[in-house]
This record gives sequence, structure tokens and C-alpha cells, in this order.
Amino acid sequence: MLPVRIVSRNSAFEVPWAEPLADPSSPQPGPGAALRPLARALGGRPGHAGRSIVLVGMPGAGKSSIGRRLAARFGLPFLDADTEIEVAASLPITEIFARYGEAHFRDGERRVISRLISGPPVVLATGGGAYADARTRAAIRNAGAIAVWLHCPMPVLLRRVAGREHRPMFLNADPADVLQRLMTARHPLYAEADMVISCTDEPPEFTTRRVAEALENWQPPLRLPVTLGDRSYEVVIGQGLLARAGALMAPVLPARRVVVVTDENVAPRHLPTLRAGLDAAGFQVLAEVVVPPGEASKDFPRLQAVLEQMLAAGADRRTAVVALGGGVVGDLAGFAAAVALRGMPFVQIPTTLLAQVDSSVGGKTGVNLALGKNLVGAFHQPRLVLADTDTLQTLPVRELRAGYAEVAKHGLLSGEAFWQWCEANGEKLVAGDAEALAHAVLESCKLKSAVVASDEREESPEGGRALLNLGHTFGHAFEAESGYGGQLLHGEAVGVGLGLAAAISARLGHCSQELPGRVIAHLQACGMPARARDLPRPYAVEALLGRMRKDKKVRDGALRFVLLKRPGEAFTSAEVPAEAVRQLLLDEGCSG
Amino acid sequence: MLPVRIVSRNSAFEVPWAEPLADPSSPQPGPGAALRPLARALGGRPGHAGRSIVLVGMPGAGKSSIGRRLAARFGLPFLDADTEIEVAASLPITEIFARYGEAHFRDGERRVISRLISGPPVVLATGGGAYADARTRAAIRNAGAIAVWLHCPMPVLLRRVAGREHRPMFLNADPADVLQRLMTARHPLYAEADMVISCTDEPPEFTTRRVAEALENWQPPLRLPVTLGDRSYEVVIGQGLLARAGALMAPVLPARRVVVVTDENVAPRHLPTLRAGLDAAGFQVLAEVVVPPGEASKDFPRLQAVLEQMLAAGADRRTAVVALGGGVVGDLAGFAAAVALRGMPFVQIPTTLLAQVDSSVGGKTGVNLALGKNLVGAFHQPRLVLADTDTLQTLPVRELRAGYAEVAKHGLLSGEAFWQWCEANGEKLVAGDAEALAHAVLESCKLKSAVVASDEREESPEGGRALLNLGHTFGHAFEAESGYGGQLLHGEAVGVGLGLAAAISARLGHCSQELPGRVIAHLQACGMPARARDLPRPYAVEALLGRMRKDKKVRDGALRFVLLKRPGEAFTSAEVPAEAVRQLLLDEGCSG
Repeated sequence: MLPVRIVSRNSAFEVPWAEPLADPSSPQPGPGAALRPLARALGGRPGHAGRSIVLVGMPGAGKSSIGRRLAARFGLPFLDADTEIEVAASLPITEIFARYGEAHFRDGERRVISRLISGPPVVLATGGGAYADARTRAAIRNAGAIAVWLHCPMPVLLRRVAGREHRPMFLNADPADVLQRLMTARHPLYAEADMVISCTDEPPEFTTRRVAEALENWQPPLRLPVTLGDRSYEVVIGQGLLARAGALMAPVLPARRVVVVTDENVAPRHLPTLRAGLDAAGFQVLAEVVVPPGEASKDFPRLQAVLEQMLAAGADRRTAVVALGGGVVGDLAGFAAAVALRGMPFVQIPTTLLAQVDSSVGGKTGVNLALGKNLVGAFHQPRLVLADTDTLQTLPVRELRAGYAEVAKHGLLSGEAFWQWCEANGEKLVAGDAEALAHAVLESCKLKSAVVASDEREESPEGGRALLNLGHTFGHAFEAESGYGGQLLHGEAVGVGLGLAAAISARLGHCSQELPGRVIAHLQACGMPARARDLPRPYAVEALLGRMRKDKKVRDGALRFVLLKRPGEAFTSAEVPAEAVRQLLLDEGCSG
Repeated sequence: MLPVRIVSRNSAFEVPWAEPLADPSSPQPGPGAALRPLARALGGRPGHAGRSIVLVGMPGAGKSSIGRRLAARFGLPFLDADTEIEVAASLPITEIFARYGEAHFRDGERRVISRLISGPPVVLATGGGAYADARTRAAIRNAGAIAVWLHCPMPVLLRRVAGREHRPMFLNADPADVLQRLMTARHPLYAEADMVISCTDEPPEFTTRRVAEALENWQPPLRLPVTLGDRSYEVVIGQGLLARAGALMAPVLPARRVVVVTDENVAPRHLPTLRAGLDAAGFQVLAEVVVPPGEASKDFPRLQAVLEQMLAAGADRRTAVVALGGGVVGDLAGFAAAVALRGMPFVQIPTTLLAQVDSSVGGKTGVNLALGKNLVGAFHQPRLVLADTDTLQTLPVRELRAGYAEVAKHGLLSGEAFWQWCEANGEKLVAGDAEALAHAVLESCKLKSAVVASDEREESPEGGRALLNLGHTFGHAFEAESGYGGQLLHGEAVGVGLGLAAAISARLGHCSQELPGRVIAHLQACGMPARARDLPRPYAVEALLGRMRKDKKVRDGALRFVLLKRPGEAFTSAEVPAEAVRQLLLDEGCSG
């Protein structure tokens, strides 16, 4: 009778059989805490090193059998969550269910699991319902453990559970019906596991080896926090993220319900993968809104059409808007999310280098007016940014190069370290090197997120977000003069702008006379225009100056530029004489 | 030599001759501190009682001469700021200027003035430049003193300063030129004074009497705070506010530059007064955007046109958008302000009862889609709401009555006190009684601002802003069925909705059986529809139910209503059986 008394001595709500969680304010977070330091994540060790491994899946999937073998192989302790719960409660699980109900059991289960994975790494097999509980999933995620879903087909499961009919879940029911019902409910939740291993009827040794190899080769996606109070979010950077989009999004969204906005170029390349990734996590896609590619889609009638399509499909305030594409799609969909029903959750899935390193982070959204670009918009931070570097492999080389201009800009803003990395790796990057691309995205997002965190709404009178406009006062002028027709891409204009910004900084004596040459040589080596004379046609000096005077940064009529002292040291200045700008443009081959 | 040593012993930046300000965290704020308790402001005492009086104006306006007489008349001490500054500094003002410059002098001047008005009431004459300093104006405002501008015409000033050519400001210059230059610069700033007295060449005794009478009759506008962190603002309620709009707006805006959005009905009635009020405080009106009246203006093409007009006129992020009109203008202009350049400052000047008691407070802005009203929008809080009750005198009686529905709703939400006030004063109010209107606006804004402060973005799952929808689930259904063509005004639909909300609350046993009769009788006494059978045509039950199922508040298919227990006690409920609603509508005369 002792077990009964132990339990009954305490309130059911205190879950006495689960020890309290570690102090959440402890300075020792798990090795893979949600916002884990990038340095560690970048260390190159096998992904599982230092982490607990939590096996999840249906009854009969082999969690215990494979877990035991895996533990032996890795030299880690093996634990079975259900056994530990029964020990802690001194009651069989069936009894806990019967006496206190499922909610009580799940609460205790979560706390036992949290305790078991809070110390040195273990291999832990969990009950089939554990990972279906949102708070348990969050606890496993926050502890930095790796959840591995042993994904078994129905016939295998059925064979393995045969003879377990004494289990409460199979009482007086057809096991196939029960399993099917559970699979339908749980698979979308299991899909949030860090790793999915498809299991067959092969011997457990074989499956164990496959799991072990996957764990050894596994690299977690990099997670970069953008710290903005209750609007904080993560930029997740890695390969294969589209296929796992639903699993990555589910923890940060209020409902598994989305509308996807994309464009006609991106849809055939990436929408099927995203759709499958959403479906795997049980997401309902209410609408797929496909807009024509290009800047022309960022207009008012298109915005209205997107909003009508979203809302007619039944989108509500708990439905997320997912932008799949480049800067145009992100700006348009983000603005639609900002204003539909006075604000819907929003997820950025940038598929261009420009969008991954720049426009998807920071919450700027908007559309154009005939009067100018981005004149109408909102600051609307995404709940998540998924930068899947695989999508960059399908980019046209001209677009990859143009996107690289913003990487180079971040290099100049960040400091010698990243700038020198650019000089050393830029050519490899624009040739499509996956590792270089991932590093550039990561470093760019680091810089951008830090700047955004310090000046979310671009209100700093000096510095802050305004520094991100390095090269852009010139660049926007060239871009506007080109007419946005694809003759000159934004990034190409920024390339020329960076060259000119460095040149004017040198002429005004702010930076060394060598810096402009370094900037221009590097951009040209990467196949980009970096001087006005690199462009296919001459631009008129006065027309460019006229455009600059209409720049949003103009205050009280003074041209404002971001100038450089050296890589890592930029400043905004309203003290650039128009005459110096005019002379520079003339010297660079613009027409007088 | 002593004076020199005293001054030079201290850093010029410490302004040693001005005593430190009172501790700002003191629990004894001035009697008219910016956010003064309304109860006190409503007490009905002469406006100046308990406050210091600060005379401002040009050299020669008679600040000392009238100040001395005014002090004698009111039995208050008279002080001259310039004299006090010279005593504190032990230096003549010309010397302070010469040695330390104007910035230093203004800093000290502000601190001396703050000290002089921080204690019991005095009459204080200030130097001509004092009130032209923004920080000094703020200090006077925050101390709750009354600033009185003695506004003198140029010939009078010229005569009076004749013979003062030894003053530094007139050295080697034509006094008329000097005065004209000063007037141009300072009059827009003097306009921020609480009271403007036009002076002539009459003897000072006469002017003093006029000032004294104005002070005795003066009532400050009521200032109601809406507390939303760094988005906090005030609702200013009173008469004659349009004519003082610029003076009231200037302290809370980044620049004296606006675009005004209004409609074709309101423009001829109120735009000239507003224009003059803005002009007096030196505001530049970049554009006056006049839209057609009515709900049809809240659409996408109109929004785009408003944005283009504003931006083409040169509006920048420091330009404020001023909405002058009813709910349609406020929603449209507010949304334009929310999204133009990703956010411009915004001021609401509601000119209908509905807008003054409801839509202008709380930051909801937006436009309609064909799919439904207000489906696109933003939460964008104004910097200031000016509810000028004079504007209500020109409202058509039907519109005044319709607006009263929201007042009655606030009565029911607020409690027996305000509800009984409504029952006692509603008929007087809809007949245009100015005092009743002002009280209703004040109490409504009090209730609304408290609710908004607790749930700015309507995120509370229960209660919060949702309670403001009392009567609106029914009301929106009738309004939508009527087609928004003016056949049924929003407020009229809300009147019927309040009757039905009370009736269903009684039928479900939540409130007394008497409450519905009380609500209906009161609204009908005020000349409003309160039952479906009061409407000019029958509405179909199934059509109404269909509309209710599309209400934004529907979650998971359940109709959501705000129900009443008693005045002051409302709650949201998803447990209202559709059958009960159907039966009620049938019983109330809707067609089956």
C-alpha cells in the first residue's frame, strides 16, 4: 500500500513523483539550448556530441530495442522514460492514468524526462505519447537534446504490437484502427523531431547502425537569435530546411495553418518541397498565392489581390503568412501579414542570397508607389526566418553575384575579419560553394541582427540601421535611373555604390587611399560592377544627383551618406559637398 | 568683484545661479500637471485657482506692468523672472549673455522659472525669449502654471520700446525690424500659451481687468491619459480646441508640419478653423486631402490616392497626419499614417459623437475589402486626440443619436453610476446639451482608454477589448444586411444590438429580466431604434445568423457574444445556442 500513500500524500497537481526541473535561471543551459552560441554550433564536432538522444515514435517502433544498442555503441547510459516514471511514482503507468487522468500523467512525464536529460548525455526511449505533448517537445528542445523519430510503416508496427493486446490502448479495439488513429494524430507532431529515421523490418542492429551514422553526420541548423523583446525570433540557417519547414515553424506559431506567398519563378522550384515539409508536420495550407516575379508585384493592386486571396481562403489571426522567395515576395507578403486583420504571424523563407543576407531579417516590409520604392510599409518582424542554403544552388549566377554585394557591404561594416574573409572567399562563393554561402549568410545575419536589435525602427539619429545603407545613396540613384527593369539589379547598383562610397570617403580624407581600390578590385574579381564605368551605359551626373536629393535619408536638404574610416568603422554624414560628389561621378565616367 | 568670483567658481554648465528643480519623483505634483486628475479639473472652480500665472509676450507687451496689478488684484506675490535671474547670478543679464552665451542663459532662466513656480501660486513676468524656449515652455506646462500671452500689435510695441535703445537687442538696428523679426519667430511659440489676450493701447488697469476676468472664467481643457508605455497619449476634451489645435499639438509632435485628411462634409464646416489654429502656432500644412464622405472612402484605391497625395506634397517621417472628421476619416487617415514611410505621427480630431466617444481612441485604423469591413489595418496610436465638443453642435440629429448608442454601451459597460447618468441625461444630450455632451465624451473616453490600456492589441482571450463589442455581434449583422448604404447607421445598428444583447442575456438567465426593458426604453426615449421591430423594414433571421457566423470574433465555429450580468459587469461567451438567438430574433419581429 506504500506507493498509494506516497502519491496520495501530495496534490495530484504537484506531480510528486517527478523531481523539480533545474532552475531555469541557471547559468548552465543545455549544450543545444534554443538560442545556442553559434561558436559552439560551428565547431565542426559530430552533431550529437555532448547531447542526449531522445528516441520518439509509435508503440512498436523499436525505441527501447534500438535505444539500448545505440547507448552501448556510444558508451552512454540508456534510460526508458516509462520505467523511470513508474519508479518515481511507485505506480504502474496504467494506474497513474486510471487514478489521475492523462493530463496529470503528461505533466509528470515531462518533468521526469526533463530531469533525465538535464545532466550528462544519455540515450532515452520515450513512451509513444510523450513527444506528442507540446510542452514535452519544448522541454526536450530547450534541453538541447536530439529527438530522433523512428518512423515505422504500419505493417511493421502491427506485427510488433501483436500480443501486446493487454495494453490499455488496445483493449476491446482493433489494433490496426487504434494505430491508424494514433499515427494520424501523432505523426505531424513526431515530425518536429530533429531527425527522422525511416525504419523497416530489418534487424535492430541494422537500424541502430543507421541511426548512429545519421547522428554522427548530423549538424544542427544554425540558429541565430534576433533579440527584440517580445518580438524576438531566430534565423535558422542550414541545408534541407524547406523539407522540415513545418517542424521548424510549429513551435513558434499559434496554429498549424498557413497561407504561402511566392512567385512564378520560385513556385516550381521550391513550392513542392515546402508543401511536403508543411504537410509532414500537419500544416493546413489555406492558399498558395503566386505572384509574377519582379519589382512590379510590389504595388497596391497586387497587395490588395494578395490580401483578398488570403482572407477569402479563410485566413484568421492565428494563420501564418509564409513568404517563399526573394526580397519582392518577402516585402509584399510581409506587408500583407502586417496589415491583414491588423496583423498576422509571418515567416520568411528567403530563397535568394540577397534575401537571406539582408531583406528577410529586420522586419522591414512594404510596397512601392509611383513616387518611389518602399514608400508604404510596416515594421513587422517575422516569427522565424528559414534560410535554406540549398535554395541558393538554383539561383542564376547574375543574381547570386548581385546578392553578394550585400555580403561585401556587411564585410565592410563588420570589420577586417569578415572583410578579409570576403576577399579570400568571395570568388568561391559566387561560384556556388555551399560552405562559403552558409558562412556568408551566417555572418551577414549576425551583423544585421545586431544592428536591428539596437535600432529596430530606424530611429537612431546617427548610426544604427542607417549604417546598413552603406553604398545605397549612390546605389539607389543608379537603380532608379535604370528604371528597375532588370537592366541593373539592386545588388549591382549597390556594388557600384560601395565602390563610390569608398572613393568619396577616401577623397574626403576619412579612410586610406588604398581602401577604394581594395573594394573595387574585390567586387570586380567576383564578377560584379564596382565602378560607374563598369556599367553597360553611362549615367548622367545631374540625374543621379537629383535622385540622391530625393533619397529618404535627406534631411533639411542635405545629402546624407554612409562613409567609411576602415572596415568595421562607418558613420553617417550630412557633410558631403555636392560638388565633391559631382566631381567623383564625372571622374568615374558619368556623363556631364 | 564678488559676483564674478561666485559665478566663476562653478562650471558654466552647472548654472550655479539657478537652484535645483524639485525632485521630479515627488508625490506632490503641481496642481495642473500635464496629466492632471480629472476629478479636480471637473471641480468647477475658476481655472486659475491654485495655479501660478506666467505672463509671456514681446518686449513692451506690458508683462511687468500688468503682472504687478494682476498680483495685487489676486493677492498673490509678483515676481519678475529677469530680476530673479540677475539676483541669483549676481550679474546683469547682458553680462550673462556676454560671458556665457544664450544657451547657458536659457538653461538658467528655465531653472529659475521652474523654481519660482514650483511653490505656492505667484504671478510671474518673463523675459521675451523665455517662452520661446521649448524646454521652458514644457517646464511651465508641467508645473501646471497658466501661461498668458499678452498679444500686442506692432505700433503699440514700437511706442513702448522707444527710448529702450540701450537694450542690446536694439543696438545699431531699426527697432521695427528687430521687433518684426522677433514676432515672426516667437508668435508661433507664444501661441502655445494657455490663454491669449489681445492688448491695445488702453491703460494697463483695463487690460489687467480683462486678463483677470479671462482667468476667472477660464476652464482648462480636460486631459485624459491613455497609458500605453512609450505610445501613451492624451485625449483633450473641451470647447474651442480646433482654434488652438497647433498650440495643443506642437508639444507632442517632432515638427510643426502636417498633412490634413478630412471629408467633403467636414471641410467647409471645420477646416478653416483648424487651418487658423495650425497657422497661429506656425504649422506648415503640406496638403489638405479631402475625400468623399462615407464608408466607401475606406477602400484600397482611396488609401493609395491619399498616400500619394501626402507623399507627393513632401511629407516625411516628422510630418504628422491629422484626421479631421468622423470614423471613416480617422480610420483611413490613421492607416495611411501607419504605413506611409513605415509610420508617421498621427493626430485624431474627431468631429462626430461616434468618433469622439469611440473610434478616435485606441489606435485601431484600417480600410475595408469587398470581403468585409476593417479587414485590413494596423494598430497605430495617435500622438494626441482633440475632441472639440463645439464640432458636435453642427452634427445632424440622426448622427448625434446614432453616436449616442456607443455612449449608452459605455454606460452599460461602466456601471450603474454612468448608466444611470445616461438614463437621466441621454435625452438632453441628443438634444445637443453641451455640458451633457462633454461629460459623455469624457466618461466614454475614460472607459475606453482603460480598456485599451489593458489590452492594446485585442489579444486577451476573454474580456479586454472584446467587451467593447457589446451589442456589436447583433449590430454588425444588421448593418451588413442593410448594405452600409446609410439606410441603417452603425450606431443605430448598435442600438438594436444593445437591446438584443440585453434580451439574450436575460433569456439565458445572466441578468435580471428587467434590464432589457430598461435598455430598450432608454434608447427609444433618446429617439433611437432599440428593437428589430423599430427598424423601417424586417430583416431575415437566417441572413442575420449567417452574418454572425462570419464575425471576426467567431472561433472554431462558435458564435461569440458579449453578455451582461448587470451594468458594469459584462463577459464574453461562446456558449450562446444558435437556437436561442434564432428564437429571440423571431420573437423580435425578424422574418423567418
